[in-house]
Amino acid sequence: MKLRVLKNVLEANESWARQNRNLLRETRAVMLNLIGSPGSGKTALLEKTIERLKGVISIGVIEGDLATAKDARRIQREGVPARQINTGSGCHLNAHQVHRALSAFPKGSPPGLLFVENVGNLVCPAEFDLGEEAKVAVLSVTEGDDKVEKYPLLFRKVRVLVITKMDLLRHTDFDLETATRAFRKLNRKALLLTVDSLSGRGFSGWIDYLRDLYRANSK
Amino acid sequence: MKLRVLKNVLEANESWARQNRNLLRETRAVMLNLIGSPGSGKTALLEKTIERLKGVISIGVIEGDLATAKDARRIQREGVPARQINTGSGCHLNAHQVHRALSAFPKGSPPGLLFVENVGNLVCPAEFDLGEEAKVAVLSVTEGDDKVEKYPLLFRKVRVLVITKMDLLRHTDFDLETATRAFRKLNRKALLLTVDSLSGRGFSGWIDYLRDLYRANSK
Repeated sequence: MKLRVLKNVLEANESWARQNRNLLRETRAVMLNLIGSPGSGKTALLEKTIERLKGVISIGVIEGDLATAKDARRIQREGVPARQINTGSGCHLNAHQVHRALSAFPKGSPPGLLFVENVGNLVCPAEFDLGEEAKVAVLSVTEGDDKVEKYPLLFRKVRVLVITKMDLLRHTDFDLETATRAFRKLNRKALLLTVDSLSGRGFSGWIDYLRDLYRANSK
Repeated sequence: MKLRVLKNVLEANESWARQNRNLLRETRAVMLNLIGSPGSGKTALLEKTIERLKGVISIGVIEGDLATAKDARRIQREGVPARQINTGSGCHLNAHQVHRALSAFPKGSPPGLLFVENVGNLVCPAEFDLGEEAKVAVLSVTEGDDKVEKYPLLFRKVRVLVITKMDLLRHTDFDLETATRAFRKLNRKALLLTVDSLSGRGFSGWIDYLRDLYRANSK
């Protein structure tokens, strides 16, 4: 009974995800789904990304949180359109919520590169397709190098792993080799990047990835 | 339909939670449910707590993780019995899982103080009663001072908020006053503690709380 309902929920989600993909295709936009713990640095990553890509690619952001519009406001301060979704007690975004947010972007000049910042959570968001091009995991060094092994569900599915807060690395016992080895056991193909979103150190690989994705998509 | 199923799930959980409470009453044990993001420092808090209470109170730990027995092994190294629950893709512990773990502790010398370290997640674990005496939120300063407002569900319910990783405070922009104000808007009665689990700084309030709880319960 429980399994059947979950199946129905996932099927309904999949149908909205398909509609999102159609919508994105129509506007030649590409969408990434950022997933990480609360405080892993997803919004900071976006702020620096926007700074780097301003005037190069038009960006839009969909923010998911249980409550507050804090993150959408942080993004809007960077001069980029952002839509906040408040889930109440919901632990992840679903494709229908994202569909409504996508539809609310101005029709005249739709963003070419869309980021969804999911609810801070390493578990539930991994199971829901939002119609994105790729899932991106965001993991901060302050969380510890054991998190890849302890939350394999997400790390298996992502196309990119961004390890953040590298400026704090020397204050922690996070071992990059341990984390990398654990990640490669689960995921051999994904891009693995290490960044410090305050200084922008390590951003070149991430920005190159985004540009290539955007170019390939807008052809 | 979805709501009804959730109601059934929560009702079944409540019945197991009641059984857990009975079991705990029989052995005069008290159980706390630790909830926080992945990497918020729940296990480190427990390690230092065990160090401080060794020989004073007999402790037992139930560890929840999607995968690996890493945390249970960390606790066992401290000389304390620990049971690991692996949830697979489950985003929280339920009362039935905890019931089985409780039943596996040695009957002869049951622990007087039990900690459940829930799956790292600020959302879903808040909704499930495990039969615990109190929920304890664990929030690290590296996660940011906006997390209380963004994840109100949990912070409303807890009896204690432990802010961890205070040794890293000066390397972050975490503002204690902002976090405290946000917390007090949601929860006027809970105990609020700030600790550094490496040095043990700030632990006296936490240890006092645990001793008082244990004493009141074993009377």
